[in-house]
Amino acid sequence: MSRIKVLAFDTFGTVTDWHTGVTAVLAETFPGVDAAQLALAWRLRYSPALAEVESGERPWALLDDLHRTELDAILRDRHGIEASAEQLDHAVHAWHVIPGWPDAADAIRRLKTRYVVTALSNGNVALLTEMAKHNGFDWDFIGGADLWRHYKPAPQVYLGLAELMRVRPDEVLMVATHASDLAAARGCGLRTAYIERPREWGPMAKPEQREPLDEFHATGMDDLADQLGC
Amino acid sequence: MSRIKVLAFDTFGTVTDWHTGVTAVLAETFPGVDAAQLALAWRLRYSPALAEVESGERPWALLDDLHRTELDAILRDRHGIEASAEQLDHAVHAWHVIPGWPDAADAIRRLKTRYVVTALSNGNVALLTEMAKHNGFDWDFIGGADLWRHYKPAPQVYLGLAELMRVRPDEVLMVATHASDLAAARGCGLRTAYIERPREWGPMAKPEQREPLDEFHATGMDDLADQLGC
Repeated sequence: MSRIKVLAFDTFGTVTDWHTGVTAVLAETFPGVDAAQLALAWRLRYSPALAEVESGERPWALLDDLHRTELDAILRDRHGIEASAEQLDHAVHAWHVIPGWPDAADAIRRLKTRYVVTALSNGNVALLTEMAKHNGFDWDFIGGADLWRHYKPAPQVYLGLAELMRVRPDEVLMVATHASDLAAARGCGLRTAYIERPREWGPMAKPEQREPLDEFHATGMDDLADQLGC
Repeated sequence: MSRIKVLAFDTFGTVTDWHTGVTAVLAETFPGVDAAQLALAWRLRYSPALAEVESGERPWALLDDLHRTELDAILRDRHGIEASAEQLDHAVHAWHVIPGWPDAADAIRRLKTRYVVTALSNGNVALLTEMAKHNGFDWDFIGGADLWRHYKPAPQVYLGLAELMRVRPDEVLMVATHASDLAAARGCGLRTAYIERPREWGPMAKPEQREPLDEFHATGMDDLADQLGC
């Protein structure tokens, strides 16, 4: 086996607690709406919206802009609310400053001592940069979807990071709490690590299953750092 | 005037002392050759090589690969030396680990408290990532030429960073010790700061001239941090 040189972290759910952060901002922006449920409904439109971009049904758009369009539609169609531009701006910005899981910032610092530690996310670079500053994530490099104009699970994203880092795909370890992200990474020749985040969806229970094809299975980023000898 | 939000630093010469770093590696790799002179000759082929890529005379190539081709040619044509692949690899790698100027790492940390602080360099991302880890440069984001497949002073680089950061060009301050880089940035609507680095070329004296169109003129990165109130 080749040596792992680069770690690539999914961000929403794996490194940050979007449910808590987004729910809090929705609650203050749209009083009277069930903010936790609205956060779930919004997030459930995430993968389909990205898939529509990848299939060509929708033109290329940054995650910020997709988030805005989707929230606007959910509020109008399901809640009869015509949100103002300011309300939508405020809600979309919530994703820039969602809190990290408590183990994240420290684990990134530990992992950096032995690996090149990167974000590899469907967020856009500006969003991820603000998220990193807000949470003290000292990424060595931020891989946002706008670098490639593709969304995971498109192979261009996984292979694009390996190319930028000038390493072979099997020298990159993709780290995520989503089996679909890891399966796609393996399809491109990357290695994979699953992180348990049972509270990702808030009150909605998330089953954590062990996938034998994952080289690592960790209960958190601190556990992953332990397993990687950092 | 709009508020400055993003700082974009040239790296070779502005943030790092390439002459010292490259001379040391050349001295150990090619004993008997005047390493300081070879470093200067190599660096003097840098701008022409990049311009040949931008003009279409040469196909796109990463800086690592351009460095290699140019050094190989200089050694063969001027010194009658057929360098081995290992010698060339070792010399090219010198640019990844050139030392920062003594004020650089601390100034980046100070500036990060108020600005998004990025590298905007003709180096490729992998090279700049290694340079950052080696020197403790805590960039918020690394803008390498391979993100745009263009070399400064091409406008795609300056405008590409502003686009990724989702700011207007006049919200970006380009920082460099090279007047040509700053002039091109101004041509794209960026604001500019000149940093004096009189020892950039080692023993070859470098005149530092004040350009009234630069919004800032600083004696170093620490002075720039002072002037920016960090």
